Amino acid sequence: MTFVNVGTLGAQPGKRDELIAQLTRPSSVLADIGCLAYEVGADDTQPDTVFVMELWKSAEAHRASLSLPEVQAQIAEARPLLSGDFGGFRFDVVGSPLHH
Amino acid sequence: MTFVNVGTLGAQPGKRDELIAQLTRPSSVLADIGCLAYEVGADDTQPDTVFVMELWKSAEAHRASLSLPEVQAQIAEARPLLSGDFGGFRFDVVGSPLHH
Repeated sequence: MTFVNVGTLGAQPGKRDELIAQLTRPSSVLADIGCLAYEVGADDTQPDTVFVMELWKSAEAHRASLSLPEVQAQIAEARPLLSGDFGGFRFDVVGSPLHH
Repeated sequence: MTFVNVGTLGAQPGKRDELIAQLTRPSSVLADIGCLAYEVGADDTQPDTVFVMELWKSAEAHRASLSLPEVQAQIAEARPLLSGDFGGFRFDVVGSPLHH
């Protein structure tokens, strides 16, 4: 079953765009390890929040990605830009009206 | 800019699967009006919640969809199954590490 992970990442004041730049840097790893979609976004009514939507081949593929050196390095690089406010949710996909 | 809408829909006790069945019924309309992805999901630790992740060509395409007869009919059909608890968030996509 494919797996969705969506999140809101609080950024330190004025650091949202720098965080977005990091998260949208081309990655040669993600697609190979089962990431089907990784969309990064913003909402101008929330200037200190970065939004992420990820679609993975499985919950396991997502979990395994977190221990990859490249991903660990990205998390470490982003940490100083984060405020510590996190939100979001995760779920297993059970169907879609667009494809069967 | 593409647009993401993610949500958690509270279902009346025991009605989650019926709500999922409704939301995953094949739709011939969504793709034509700019819906790029519409994934419906569940999380067994939250038995009364249905999760939705939608990716649209634009915020405007999403907004316009809400007034379509087919979509209005679906909302009316789902209403008795809903508990009234809603969550989630929306954002404009500004980039992705997977495609440039």
